[in-house]
Amino acid sequence: MSLIVQKYGGTSVGDPERIRNCARRIMECHAAGHRVVAVVSAMAGVTNRLIQLASEVTGEGREPTEREMDVLLATGEQTTIALTAMAINAMGGKAVSLTGAQAGIETDGVHTKARIANITPGEVHRFLDEGNIVILAGFQGKTAEGRITTLGRGGSDLTAIAMAAAIDADLCQIYTDVDGVYTCDPRVVPTARKLEEISYDELLEMASSGSKVMQSRSVEFAKKFGVRFEVRSSLNNNPGTLVREETMSMESVVIRGVSLERDQAKVTITGVGDLPGTASRIFGPVAKANVIIDMIVQNVSKTGITDISFTVNKADLAKAEAALKPVLADLGDGVTMEAQGGIAKLSVVGIGMRSHAGVAAQMFETLSNAGVNIQMISTSEIKIAVTVAEDQIETAAKAVHEAFGLSALQG
Amino acid sequence: MSLIVQKYGGTSVGDPERIRNCARRIMECHAAGHRVVAVVSAMAGVTNRLIQLASEVTGEGREPTEREMDVLLATGEQTTIALTAMAINAMGGKAVSLTGAQAGIETDGVHTKARIANITPGEVHRFLDEGNIVILAGFQGKTAEGRITTLGRGGSDLTAIAMAAAIDADLCQIYTDVDGVYTCDPRVVPTARKLEEISYDELLEMASSGSKVMQSRSVEFAKKFGVRFEVRSSLNNNPGTLVREETMSMESVVIRGVSLERDQAKVTITGVGDLPGTASRIFGPVAKANVIIDMIVQNVSKTGITDISFTVNKADLAKAEAALKPVLADLGDGVTMEAQGGIAKLSVVGIGMRSHAGVAAQMFETLSNAGVNIQMISTSEIKIAVTVAEDQIETAAKAVHEAFGLSALQG
Repeated sequence: MSLIVQKYGGTSVGDPERIRNCARRIMECHAAGHRVVAVVSAMAGVTNRLIQLASEVTGEGREPTEREMDVLLATGEQTTIALTAMAINAMGGKAVSLTGAQAGIETDGVHTKARIANITPGEVHRFLDEGNIVILAGFQGKTAEGRITTLGRGGSDLTAIAMAAAIDADLCQIYTDVDGVYTCDPRVVPTARKLEEISYDELLEMASSGSKVMQSRSVEFAKKFGVRFEVRSSLNNNPGTLVREETMSMESVVIRGVSLERDQAKVTITGVGDLPGTASRIFGPVAKANVIIDMIVQNVSKTGITDISFTVNKADLAKAEAALKPVLADLGDGVTMEAQGGIAKLSVVGIGMRSHAGVAAQMFETLSNAGVNIQMISTSEIKIAVTVAEDQIETAAKAVHEAFGLSALQG
Repeated sequence: MSLIVQKYGGTSVGDPERIRNCARRIMECHAAGHRVVAVVSAMAGVTNRLIQLASEVTGEGREPTEREMDVLLATGEQTTIALTAMAINAMGGKAVSLTGAQAGIETDGVHTKARIANITPGEVHRFLDEGNIVILAGFQGKTAEGRITTLGRGGSDLTAIAMAAAIDADLCQIYTDVDGVYTCDPRVVPTARKLEEISYDELLEMASSGSKVMQSRSVEFAKKFGVRFEVRSSLNNNPGTLVREETMSMESVVIRGVSLERDQAKVTITGVGDLPGTASRIFGPVAKANVIIDMIVQNVSKTGITDISFTVNKADLAKAEAALKPVLADLGDGVTMEAQGGIAKLSVVGIGMRSHAGVAAQMFETLSNAGVNIQMISTSEIKIAVTVAEDQIETAAKAVHEAFGLSALQG
């Protein structure tokens, strides 16, 4: 008999019929002899409606108190746990619901994006011992003083993984609307294959490169506490992708996947002095404008003068330009700024590349043969990322996916 | 500086604009120098939508688990407390929300109709001491083990009155959509006047006679703990009606009000033996059929044979008849049953009648003069109730209201 934590997202519990489907799935797992804790999110659309209500009572231009925002948002998951437990009980199962607070999920006091500080799963164990299926509210917890908190984006995944760690579950299953993690986005590369397994680090690099299966935060937590989890679909019974610590055998695969991110833009500052403090004088104002920067590339300078390029989301390009205009003159005579939209990022990810030479060379040659011009290059230990013209990203992805033999991968 | 508990019902907080209105009213009270705890209900319509969702996930003919029903329903008030506190904060006030559990409202474990067992208002005091307005969720509490419970019908009024008792509030204000308690329903008797004050017992008798300002349960609780409360409108600033322990001066008013209840039906069992156990053989089956009986009249018998009449809500008449048919034969030879709809009940209520002779006589004479035939009579210490034909109830109410000088009452 295994102890299994399952997590169902907002789409999976989006209406009464879907809740009944999840209830059936949970009961099947229980009937197979397992002890089950199922973490559920708010029904799709509910959180947005609550946010809308909050903005209507607070009025134009005012932010709702964050403490109260958490009290409000927590009702979304509380509604789902009650409905899911009811559905199971109505079908002859035996389920009880627990809010985050009731399940002993203690967080810090940073409302709307709290961090889990501690889990005291006594109630969870007690209800499991009595033969119950436990339906647990994702996304929420309480402070040591009893205030209701929420965990922010990706919070329900985090609840599932943290609870799996706290109760030493044998497996954590993240049910979503995709079948698992793919070698590439199947809408772009039709030959993309679902992966049987992937390491935490690879999934993290895939996520940061646009393959948004899960928030990085939950994957990092799973890595830290060694929680194996499976990403799988709530719409069918196909096996998903197992995410786990890396093993020797994983290294024999050089590249695990290709991920792509569209709607990028690039800013290049040319002719800046290669002096200490230059970078902070550029990126300070951009950060202050709340613009998130992705890639940063600076080449070595030969003449004491260098160029610095960075990428941002296309939507943030105007904000970044506006933030930089006032500081250009301070950066030196002849400093110019060039902004360019219409670019996209392509990344290849794999722990195997650490022990295989020539991955970068093969990628660049592939792109060259495909007639794709590389604009910027940035690498980490297990990732190579390049930017290309947005209208060439599909050609680039298909070529690289093929060149690294991903289409032929088993699983 | 007084400590005031206010209560706003579902209609008063029915949409964001109304919540803002309540927020303003709460802030005015606070700005006048008072410490304020405001109890709020679920927004009008929300509870029904949640019940609908529950029935959709459980499916035809199955009852949702009551434990989970409470978890579900409690989200209604939790939503309102967050929104109300946000609204106050957005307008420059300082408010915090508390769920029933957080406010220390402990109940027994009877889900969906729990009784308050104990209140530990430490958090309420702490937040008040810090200068906050406290927004408290009505209708809900928790068991000693931490399960979420709800208090059933009229639960938010009960929360307000019980919390007022627990924190020794100076006043409890029940905001509703009427101006207060009237001498009679103004839609029936246009000269009806709002009462300045009324005793607990009088309000209880009025409530049980169809004037549904509040559930009896909350009034009984207030009486038991001596909590004075004011029933007033959330739509204007008119003074309401103060409900309190009776005083000597109250007795100088003979009749406080006239209340009427339509849609009644009458069942008469004739020719039953006047023997021990007869009443229970009649009312046992009716109770088992979940029919609530109002008046019961049995006259003294001269011949060992008597008639028993009782009234029920018109909607329950068929159920009552069906329950009685099988037992008629057991009651003796020649026992017959007669059922009749189309009747209504008229009551006059007042603690003054205890010390004033002739109230009943005056009432009967008034009805006779008005051409209204009395069918049944039932009296308590501070109430006289009669049933009349439903199409005569308005004539009867106007005549009695006038005869007891209620139209001329001050206040």
